[in-house]
Amino acid sequence: MTVELLSVGTELLLGNIVNTNAAYLAEKCAALGLSSYYQSVVGDNEERLEEAVRLALERSDIVILSGGLGPTKDDITKEVTARIFGRELYEDSHTKERIAGYFRHMKTAKVTENNWKQALVPEGAVIVDNHNGTAPGLIIEGEKKTAILLPGPPNELKPMFEETIAPYLNRLQPEGIYSKMIKLCGIGESKAETMIADLMEIQTNPTIAPYAKTGEVHLRVTAKAADKNEADKLIQPVLEDLYRRFGNLIYTEEEELNLEDAVVNILEERGLTLTTAESCTGGKLAGRLVNVAGVSGVFNEGYITYSDEAKNKLLGVSWETLKEYGAVSSQTAREMAEGAAKEAGADAALSVTGIAGPAGGTEEKPAGLVFIGCYLNGHTRVEEFHFTGNREKNRDYAVVRALTLLREELLGDRG
Amino acid sequence: MTVELLSVGTELLLGNIVNTNAAYLAEKCAALGLSSYYQSVVGDNEERLEEAVRLALERSDIVILSGGLGPTKDDITKEVTARIFGRELYEDSHTKERIAGYFRHMKTAKVTENNWKQALVPEGAVIVDNHNGTAPGLIIEGEKKTAILLPGPPNELKPMFEETIAPYLNRLQPEGIYSKMIKLCGIGESKAETMIADLMEIQTNPTIAPYAKTGEVHLRVTAKAADKNEADKLIQPVLEDLYRRFGNLIYTEEEELNLEDAVVNILEERGLTLTTAESCTGGKLAGRLVNVAGVSGVFNEGYITYSDEAKNKLLGVSWETLKEYGAVSSQTAREMAEGAAKEAGADAALSVTGIAGPAGGTEEKPAGLVFIGCYLNGHTRVEEFHFTGNREKNRDYAVVRALTLLREELLGDRG
Repeated sequence: MTVELLSVGTELLLGNIVNTNAAYLAEKCAALGLSSYYQSVVGDNEERLEEAVRLALERSDIVILSGGLGPTKDDITKEVTARIFGRELYEDSHTKERIAGYFRHMKTAKVTENNWKQALVPEGAVIVDNHNGTAPGLIIEGEKKTAILLPGPPNELKPMFEETIAPYLNRLQPEGIYSKMIKLCGIGESKAETMIADLMEIQTNPTIAPYAKTGEVHLRVTAKAADKNEADKLIQPVLEDLYRRFGNLIYTEEEELNLEDAVVNILEERGLTLTTAESCTGGKLAGRLVNVAGVSGVFNEGYITYSDEAKNKLLGVSWETLKEYGAVSSQTAREMAEGAAKEAGADAALSVTGIAGPAGGTEEKPAGLVFIGCYLNGHTRVEEFHFTGNREKNRDYAVVRALTLLREELLGDRG
Repeated sequence: MTVELLSVGTELLLGNIVNTNAAYLAEKCAALGLSSYYQSVVGDNEERLEEAVRLALERSDIVILSGGLGPTKDDITKEVTARIFGRELYEDSHTKERIAGYFRHMKTAKVTENNWKQALVPEGAVIVDNHNGTAPGLIIEGEKKTAILLPGPPNELKPMFEETIAPYLNRLQPEGIYSKMIKLCGIGESKAETMIADLMEIQTNPTIAPYAKTGEVHLRVTAKAADKNEADKLIQPVLEDLYRRFGNLIYTEEEELNLEDAVVNILEERGLTLTTAESCTGGKLAGRLVNVAGVSGVFNEGYITYSDEAKNKLLGVSWETLKEYGAVSSQTAREMAEGAAKEAGADAALSVTGIAGPAGGTEEKPAGLVFIGCYLNGHTRVEEFHFTGNREKNRDYAVVRALTLLREELLGDRG
């Protein structure tokens, strides 16, 4: 069974946005054992879109279209695809009610006439409720080929794919593909690949595929098997081997868990509280911790101290330290972490101070230099990092490194 | 003149990496006034690659291929494209010398026999030196169509494009496409489109295209013209019309500026300082403000007060308020903003308190309910929002709404 991705949107052709949906869908489809030979992007142009959909349906069994389901006149993905399948559009009362409910709930937004366009669906299509927006997903099954239409916004597309499309695609599969993901932090992609080069060399079933993420590496182990039981028997020894090789660098084998979940879980298990003191990340680290819905058990407060004055006033970093070593220094990072822990009465504290760039760097302290401090139960460790990305990327890396550092300290503490 | 992007690489089809090259090239080509109607991704498979290159050359004037120029057997982009243009490959001594020099310079890496494959170039091709790797770029000019081959690694592709390919493409241009983006906040996509439905109905040159972003709408006005001067004459009256319709909802017409830049700019102009008090956003709002490289002039410190205790201790929110109205209330949002401004000695303060979900909601206060407070020069305004996304999206919307609210207050204050 082959699947092809067709992303619809002039903003992709103009390079306004990066096509992260394609990478997401490609990874998910590969994990489901579907072969994919083509991805395309086309704009909101009727003729070219029709041509692209026809070509994709000609050469692949399933075409997943994303984008172009919005309420505006530009949005024509549904109209064009329905026509290719020879289906008329009708107003679906369930979807109309959902759209009305969405706007009632939003209160601030008013439903406009063109929103009802999103309640039009092709005859015979499977309608997939959108829990995060107004455009429903659609599955149009033809005699031999299938088109799956998903809304473009990633926060609508991803949950819809997870909840409904992935199980749907799995049911179509003649034999099963099962996979397990393990996630690593504190190791680079090349290093991780080198450590499993021998396994990758000889792999047939299961296979191992590495995915590089910001500051993380994910390894997906995929097996073909008659059922889940048999797949587990194939995957389990490989997982054990990976645990032998990577040990504590593996922070989870739960697909939906992130590094912040893993860290918060350890803190929760041990009954420890955490606080944060951020300069260059400016709240991004705490913002990421608060992604975890149950964080209130371990996190009560955090400090954003961008200026020297704030570092002194809120965290008690001494003026001597700030003057002698500067705000971006190991000493300041240490005092920030210790001061935050004291102020918040927390068992652990993470501090981040650095030069995110692009300006502000000197020869001695270049842009990308970041100090991260980790206080835990009376002991403080500070690490120095040199990031080479742009401002945004450097700050994202700093957040991941901070979480990784705390996790290391927590696990070292345990051992 | 039309350009089409064809990315070659199995790692893209498997979703191992995000296709940032396509976004980069698309944006650069759009800025050069080249029209682009298609992007494709294909793997390192001879038959499918040939088919994809032929299709691209059929429907576009220039095809930019990226990837598949490496030294391994898998890398066949050059071989396949040369064959389509009927060109033999020969060993280019200049390129061979450059490859040898690269390996001498790298020291750690050893040149292997298959590296010399990268010195083979198609007859009559323009050879573009690669200053960051071993695969040269290639421009193959046919009678009517042109193929441009670039190495896949972004750190090789981007400098090569900037230095050589962009000037080359610019020289080919007979007439250009020029565009201008205006960005709006505080209005939904449907509402915005309704307000310009008449303009979109009659549009030919220039055209207007709306893009929905989280809590924002961007409108791109695109004109075809002989030169930039003529394009400006076409675009300017449309921009003026859009300003008449949307007024202060337009926060910028600078492509590279974001909402946080616009807000920070106003604060800077007026010499005002800002602080933040965040509960459910947990630092995301401040984290976004700190995206602005020059934020240190207006932002010194921020507070993350996730627990009731922290709201009281750090911001002075009264226990009476917390008990009578709850942490998620208009009253608490007000006291958070006012307390933060006082603590930080700031002219303005934004506060966010809400139930991000998925848990924590009640019938009276459902998940998605968020209060945002804005203190400015002695006056506090609090707004109530009902978001309907998941935890992450609700928090992202709250951040945008907070920035929008402050901007409204700042502009209202001015008027």
